[in-house]
Amino acid sequence: MNSFYMPVRVLEGKDIVISSTNLLKKFGKIALLVTGKHSAKANGSYNDVITALDNVDIEHILYDDIEENPSVETIMKARDFALRQNVDFVIGIGGGSPLDAAKAISLMIYHKDEDKDYLYKTGSDSSHVPLVLIPTTCGSGSEATAVSVLTLHEKQTKKSISHLIFAELALIDGKYLMTLPHKTLCSTAIDAFTHMVESYINTKASDYSNMCVEKGLLIWSRSLDVLRGSRELTIDDCDNLMRASMMGGMSIAQCGTTIPHGLSYSLTYKKHIAHGMAVGYFTAGYLAKANQIDAKHILNLAGFKDVADYQSFFTEIYKACDIPDIDDDVLYGAVEDVLKTPVKLEITPYEVSRQDLIDIAFYSCYGA
Amino acid sequence: MNSFYMPVRVLEGKDIVISSTNLLKKFGKIALLVTGKHSAKANGSYNDVITALDNVDIEHILYDDIEENPSVETIMKARDFALRQNVDFVIGIGGGSPLDAAKAISLMIYHKDEDKDYLYKTGSDSSHVPLVLIPTTCGSGSEATAVSVLTLHEKQTKKSISHLIFAELALIDGKYLMTLPHKTLCSTAIDAFTHMVESYINTKASDYSNMCVEKGLLIWSRSLDVLRGSRELTIDDCDNLMRASMMGGMSIAQCGTTIPHGLSYSLTYKKHIAHGMAVGYFTAGYLAKANQIDAKHILNLAGFKDVADYQSFFTEIYKACDIPDIDDDVLYGAVEDVLKTPVKLEITPYEVSRQDLIDIAFYSCYGA
Repeated sequence: MNSFYMPVRVLEGKDIVISSTNLLKKFGKIALLVTGKHSAKANGSYNDVITALDNVDIEHILYDDIEENPSVETIMKARDFALRQNVDFVIGIGGGSPLDAAKAISLMIYHKDEDKDYLYKTGSDSSHVPLVLIPTTCGSGSEATAVSVLTLHEKQTKKSISHLIFAELALIDGKYLMTLPHKTLCSTAIDAFTHMVESYINTKASDYSNMCVEKGLLIWSRSLDVLRGSRELTIDDCDNLMRASMMGGMSIAQCGTTIPHGLSYSLTYKKHIAHGMAVGYFTAGYLAKANQIDAKHILNLAGFKDVADYQSFFTEIYKACDIPDIDDDVLYGAVEDVLKTPVKLEITPYEVSRQDLIDIAFYSCYGA
Repeated sequence: MNSFYMPVRVLEGKDIVISSTNLLKKFGKIALLVTGKHSAKANGSYNDVITALDNVDIEHILYDDIEENPSVETIMKARDFALRQNVDFVIGIGGGSPLDAAKAISLMIYHKDEDKDYLYKTGSDSSHVPLVLIPTTCGSGSEATAVSVLTLHEKQTKKSISHLIFAELALIDGKYLMTLPHKTLCSTAIDAFTHMVESYINTKASDYSNMCVEKGLLIWSRSLDVLRGSRELTIDDCDNLMRASMMGGMSIAQCGTTIPHGLSYSLTYKKHIAHGMAVGYFTAGYLAKANQIDAKHILNLAGFKDVADYQSFFTEIYKACDIPDIDDDVLYGAVEDVLKTPVKLEITPYEVSRQDLIDIAFYSCYGA
């Protein structure tokens, strides 16, 4: 079925956070800022938010203890902190981790008498306090999706919570990417690429999601040289990579992620491989088994000749980022994880046996 | 500034109205159905809505007195009727007229103590009771926009109300087009085309609006032969024309309409020319003055070689629809109307003098 739903108000532009004070005002008097320990302060986004809030006399308290791949425990700590401070709304600042955390926190502030089990309680009310998201990496597209992926230590993996939570407002300013370490720029840009690939090669793909994918990949391709390290990053690249990431989010919000994301989670959990690199590791294998007209169409839009060309690009970046080889047992474990989450297989538009999953998982090691 | 905001949940598909009962349930116990006198009953949409509502025991009352280009007076009559019946939410069914009317009615039901001046009271609260829109023509894209254009008899023209009202839900089923008279299919399909042209040739055009325009025009172009009368309408054409209209709505929701729409209103008011044909009358002239690379790009996507090719297509359809020539004084009057609504000129991405407007207005008569 063709459908489209992405109710977030998206505003993009230079200094957009500071010029959006009037929109922030209507969300309340006390804001909880949710972010990681360092980057929001380093890239200027934290300062912009403070300036914007101070300009309209909105009080703000900071919770900057969001780790990469935040856990359920972190969400509950932040929620309890927010309740003690009578927070009206939440502003998430950062990469996918703080933004996903901010979604879950906004849910749990609203449901103030519920405990952590509520996060994974299917069919329950998903109301949340107002939520503003400000991305400072170019990968998760979390600002455009309703998904919040948290780490479940008891299951040794990551899993989306059972609630769909769209932000009220996403404020997008490319300048925050200018100081991002090159490795993080690469791994998050590859994450955006994988969102578009997995949206296109997806049973839920529609003209609506495809228009986001096609435009997004075309925009993304303009900065390929930067990712390869053969050209300096400019502010135009930053704007383009942010927008491509947003369009990846818009498309994945319609379709959901498929096998490469499913395979990636245990690599990240067990080997601490950055999310984008962990997903991108499986993208060539996923594309190699897809309809080749479709695969070629999107690869060409992204600036690649074919699957092999993408794979050699990925390997180049993988090595430049000093990521170690993955042990076979981790890859086999990833395959078993995906077999246990059938939804990833259901939205894959081709038949996938255990052997097919093994082929995809080991494609990076052995090629076609 | 790049931005995107289109919070409507869009669901498309065969019999989507009947299969969406669970979504309708959450809007309340009593629905007001807003439609015109005949077409919703003829094309099956009215029956589908009744079936869906009866299936979940939602009461429904009918207001089927929406005329083409509905007036402020009609809105107030429908509102007063709805208040007497304790309506919880509004379902608009039909072409642009009933859908635009449904938006205004949902606003005025919420603001039950306000009189008609509230419709044009800038800066006032735009809250409305829940709103579901079901298009049965393929032109207005009203289901994806926040605009409601009403007739103001005292000003002898049409004007958007001062409130932006997005529906909660749009249900889109191509089958309702199968029984649409060919003339209406043409005039509404041309309206959708003009939305995409005016979004692309627009100072507010962005990658977000452009992706809707580019995909929408490509989909629209597949049914050109049907509009020309050289091929029978199929259900695939219906689905495509509906989707193109939706994408026209999505893009125009970001950008707003420009000069051709501004010129069209008095043709419709004074000469009763169908909205789409009245706008399409000025599209070639508008494109002839635009950046020609941009103009050619979108014309090619739509299946036309160049401006002249579009103009000859339009003239063919114009004649097939038996629309009379427009008197010079009406065209000069249209020019003066646009000069009085500077917003249409502000978002036009090229300089426009009175003489330029006259050139655009008379382009259909005299060509380049």
